[in-house]
Amino acid sequence: MSDHEQLKISIIGTGRVATHLALHLHQQNQKIQYIFNRSVEKAQVLADQVHATAIDDLAQINDTDILLICVSDSAITQISEKLSQINYQGLVAHTSGSTALSVLSNLGRNAGVFYPLQTFSFEQKIDWQSTPIFIEAKSVDALHKLEIFAENFSSKIYQYNSEQRLSLHLAAVFACNFSNYCYDIAQQILDEKQVDVDLLQPLIDATAEKLKRARAVENQTGPAVRHDQQILAMHQLMLTNHTEWQTIYQLMSQGIQARTPKN
Amino acid sequence: MSDHEQLKISIIGTGRVATHLALHLHQQNQKIQYIFNRSVEKAQVLADQVHATAIDDLAQINDTDILLICVSDSAITQISEKLSQINYQGLVAHTSGSTALSVLSNLGRNAGVFYPLQTFSFEQKIDWQSTPIFIEAKSVDALHKLEIFAENFSSKIYQYNSEQRLSLHLAAVFACNFSNYCYDIAQQILDEKQVDVDLLQPLIDATAEKLKRARAVENQTGPAVRHDQQILAMHQLMLTNHTEWQTIYQLMSQGIQARTPKN
Repeated sequence: MSDHEQLKISIIGTGRVATHLALHLHQQNQKIQYIFNRSVEKAQVLADQVHATAIDDLAQINDTDILLICVSDSAITQISEKLSQINYQGLVAHTSGSTALSVLSNLGRNAGVFYPLQTFSFEQKIDWQSTPIFIEAKSVDALHKLEIFAENFSSKIYQYNSEQRLSLHLAAVFACNFSNYCYDIAQQILDEKQVDVDLLQPLIDATAEKLKRARAVENQTGPAVRHDQQILAMHQLMLTNHTEWQTIYQLMSQGIQARTPKN
Repeated sequence: MSDHEQLKISIIGTGRVATHLALHLHQQNQKIQYIFNRSVEKAQVLADQVHATAIDDLAQINDTDILLICVSDSAITQISEKLSQINYQGLVAHTSGSTALSVLSNLGRNAGVFYPLQTFSFEQKIDWQSTPIFIEAKSVDALHKLEIFAENFSSKIYQYNSEQRLSLHLAAVFACNFSNYCYDIAQQILDEKQVDVDLLQPLIDATAEKLKRARAVENQTGPAVRHDQQILAMHQLMLTNHTEWQTIYQLMSQGIQARTPKN
């Protein structure tokens, strides 16, 4: 296939990643051929938005050029086996940060990984240009094709191996999911005292912003890093009715103090 | 004192909060009279920057109009006692989110709290206009003076009681300090595999940004909220050599799952 020819792209899955990828490709005037879901009704909803054909039988997918697997990690192996059975020959990539390339081993040299490091919600637009995309492939040729394909999304394209990508995903769980859970606990604490949760936003923004200029360990503030035992004790007392938050408070504070010993 | 008269402001302490308050007031052409530190050399460093007099004896501070106590929480009581001994009559406010107004009870009706909710680092500029300031005072008169004073910094001035302010500070520890520790763990995970830590920044920004549009609990993504037990198990296995991170991973994931039960 040449770089300029209109490639037929198909997507397996209709979740958040599938939806954002499909919508963006459609906006870029790329040709989306099939949207697959075991429920053809679910496939139809997304297919209608991107002028594609909804299917619930993988065998139909055989004439597509680029196939993106956007299903839960545990379902990738099964999809891979079915594609092998129908002798699928096109380029195929899974989109999971936490799944090794090796799960596609039965698909030969035309298999790879296309992993956009981003937090996907149905409701919110993705800033693709700032989203790093990680590619990995079984062959130089497949890698090259994935790279050209990735340029539809972002100029930040990186080649990392599976072990590195898995670390990146684990790191993202801490930096994104767990941070967000910290926000959630904070909002619940404020709700209990009828304090406006939006008041925390400038502080949250500043904390994220600081990271652009220094490492997190250097930016750390608060009672733990100051080794202010009085405040630490008072805060734990305030959390008496929420023992699970109290335990998180203790562990996080201990971790911060271990990173920055009292001078 | 009238609203327009040039008030003499003095600051007790030379730490991050003291420094940022003094520098901003000086930029606003406010008159900084004294900078106090038990080490006059330390006081001198900040005093030089804001054209103030460095002192190490609190008795000298008696002729100032507005006195800001910017010391560690545990030292506020001691400062308050000394000010009472010298019969200080001006307006005095501590700047701590985690200390009740009642610690200034020996200073009469001219005492209050001036608490800017912000994360202060020596190296980084403060966006004062977006910084909420929380005031509380023993008398309506003192509250009014603090409000006028706070307008030097921000238009976001809120009157909350001590209990609410303490909750806000506790919430800020979760939303800011603990989030930052999550970033720190993420960076350490990436360092071990030679992956560029800056790759996480767009995700971190997006996570903070999402909070402007929906509650944290609604924004949650990741393997825990998806109840993806396979990934959760794999991640914990990857953390075998970091048992303290492993425990944090478990607790945070359990907390996220308890908030958003499997449907």
